[in-house]
Amino acid sequence: MASEIINPRGELTHAGPRHTRLTDELPEAGLDPAFALHRGGKMEVRGTVPLRDADDLSLAYTPGVARVCEAIAERPELVHDYTWKSGTVAVVTDGSAVLGLGDIGPAASLPVMEGKAILFKQFGGVDAVPVALDCREVDELVETVVRLAPSFGGINLEDISAPRCFEVERRLRERLDIPVFHDDQHGTAVVTLAALRNAARLVGRELATLRVVISGAGAAGVAIARILLGAGVADVVVCDRRGVVSRDREDLTEVKRELAEITNPAGRSGSLADALAGADVFVGVSGGTVPESAVATMAPGAFVFAMANPNPEVHPEVAARYAAVVATGRSDFPNQINNVLAFPGIFAGALQVRATRITEGMKLAAAEALAAVVADELSPEKVIPSPFDARVAPAVAAAVAEAARAEGVARI
Amino acid sequence: MASEIINPRGELTHAGPRHTRLTDELPEAGLDPAFALHRGGKMEVRGTVPLRDADDLSLAYTPGVARVCEAIAERPELVHDYTWKSGTVAVVTDGSAVLGLGDIGPAASLPVMEGKAILFKQFGGVDAVPVALDCREVDELVETVVRLAPSFGGINLEDISAPRCFEVERRLRERLDIPVFHDDQHGTAVVTLAALRNAARLVGRELATLRVVISGAGAAGVAIARILLGAGVADVVVCDRRGVVSRDREDLTEVKRELAEITNPAGRSGSLADALAGADVFVGVSGGTVPESAVATMAPGAFVFAMANPNPEVHPEVAARYAAVVATGRSDFPNQINNVLAFPGIFAGALQVRATRITEGMKLAAAEALAAVVADELSPEKVIPSPFDARVAPAVAAAVAEAARAEGVARI
Repeated sequence: MASEIINPRGELTHAGPRHTRLTDELPEAGLDPAFALHRGGKMEVRGTVPLRDADDLSLAYTPGVARVCEAIAERPELVHDYTWKSGTVAVVTDGSAVLGLGDIGPAASLPVMEGKAILFKQFGGVDAVPVALDCREVDELVETVVRLAPSFGGINLEDISAPRCFEVERRLRERLDIPVFHDDQHGTAVVTLAALRNAARLVGRELATLRVVISGAGAAGVAIARILLGAGVADVVVCDRRGVVSRDREDLTEVKRELAEITNPAGRSGSLADALAGADVFVGVSGGTVPESAVATMAPGAFVFAMANPNPEVHPEVAARYAAVVATGRSDFPNQINNVLAFPGIFAGALQVRATRITEGMKLAAAEALAAVVADELSPEKVIPSPFDARVAPAVAAAVAEAARAEGVARI
Repeated sequence: MASEIINPRGELTHAGPRHTRLTDELPEAGLDPAFALHRGGKMEVRGTVPLRDADDLSLAYTPGVARVCEAIAERPELVHDYTWKSGTVAVVTDGSAVLGLGDIGPAASLPVMEGKAILFKQFGGVDAVPVALDCREVDELVETVVRLAPSFGGINLEDISAPRCFEVERRLRERLDIPVFHDDQHGTAVVTLAALRNAARLVGRELATLRVVISGAGAAGVAIARILLGAGVADVVVCDRRGVVSRDREDLTEVKRELAEITNPAGRSGSLADALAGADVFVGVSGGTVPESAVATMAPGAFVFAMANPNPEVHPEVAARYAAVVATGRSDFPNQINNVLAFPGIFAGALQVRATRITEGMKLAAAEALAAVVADELSPEKVIPSPFDARVAPAVAAAVAEAARAEGVARI
């Protein structure tokens, strides 16, 4: 069929050399293999049914398809059985907070969204479609996602700047009956909790006894604080650029005011360095730096999770002088806190049971399952599995599906 | 990688049996192969780059992807080179006019949109994503598509009811710098024109001398009238349910008033049967019926294109008693007027040169090229190629790309 056609990416259909026109003009392209790899994009759509002849066409398209449409019109739940909806996630962004690059807009964010989409498929068997939206108002983002939701089984929000991300997610969760999950918040939180569980297990501590300091009150910091509280950590302090988020501060956004209500039970104030004195755990999701002198004041046997990328808040080798366990966001040091350990399995599990939402319990179950994968192999260099550990996604998916059923949000 | 995982459609990753839960409850499912084929949907997303290890991940995702994002942020046109955008089309509907089923809503329309998407890939090498929107107002549809346009190289509008479809398309064409194409209008029009060209060629007539009667003033009828006028047909009359669309009627919508201005040069009035007396060509896109007695009044050697599906306006065997060439929309009679002959090649050609729009000239070129494929094989049973003729899409794509360049709407 149309075997000689050159498709719009300059490929022969299904195979062939990629189109190279503008690339050759780009000075970086010859030197940087990332450009060669990205030429023409990183993904494709494929049919999974035969289209060889008129008989095939009469089933996959008219007239056969009409009978399937009619059945769904009569029994709406059949859309999950007879379309790709229930295995497919939209990866939605507005390009306002892309990686560490900031507000680069929807088009420039597409390579990240494509990357996310192929990770969904590779690690979770989930089909995912990049949807980079050209709008910024919370109302617009919410309405747009609500309108396109019929085509998808789940919504993965990605790289939307704080504090808008919180309200966008909250309102979409209210409006939609499919999982809505802001990965920058909850993916990071799940993996962090898993690493903390195993670090605590390694040194024989209970989560409830740990004093945790989080640097960064954006999407990740807020979500980590919440999941740690949900997991039983009693003393969590969050710091933003101005220091400890506390009830007596008058410069807090609504989200930080809520955070001040549920964290900082000892009523601390002052700088990040002040908060770190005697703390058991540092979680860095700020992009800032922490001086060695501050790390030195932490409690003996502390855990330092310096997750800023590409430059950890404190260099892992420096941290290791004082800490029992060190983790980063980087692949070239031990204990990489990488969201790919969470989101593919979480969505795979949620979609498998056609969950209507992703609950706190499902996230906690995901963290438990992720931690359990390496529970028998624990060492200071291995509190979290490698992103390429093939046991991870199936374990996370199974735990999430079970939790969804237990919490009554599973459709099947 | 994660080789044992069961994905949300109940498949082993990349292979395996599909999920069957609800299907078993559906009485039709056991009897109708269309349901078995549709189980789990008809399409998937796949990565086209390797993700085997940390090195691969560091190019396809962080940190390598960030360099590509930055390059696009600096030079926006690079989005066409380094993402899947320029090879990817959104198949957008609101589910308001799906096949002959009418207003079944976005979810129930998904099997058709998936079918369209896999035809795009199979015949044109174009990646396509179903986007079934849960909104109805023209303003909402337009705004939503504008917002999601950054991710796509083109917009194929599908199964949106008239007259909203006209305004949605018009406004999107004004707002976007990528091709916007309502296939129910222009795909049908292109294939109809191609068939008419060859029918005229077969009997040695000039298009300009033909008197054409179109039954149906919806999306297809309006577009066919316009393309025939653009191709040089001088005398086109359009009929709606109330008869000939003429300037003296006072019950016309805005679109039909415009149609009355540009068609019906002889100032005819009356019924469809009145219009058919002495006409050379009948084009049926109405879903109505035409009595044999009316066909019998057409000019000798007439062409009857009775394209209503599944029931042609006049049975082709009846039409053949009077007509020199008979075409239908059905695959089980000769000369099937099937949009799949047009849209894959049209978008493939437009995307290949990164056209900013699809012009009248590009549509005329597509019809010419489509007709030319069988110009040396013409017979009354073959005025249009089979949908499975592998020459079609490459020929249409090449003609459309050339026309786009000639008309100055190609970016490359």
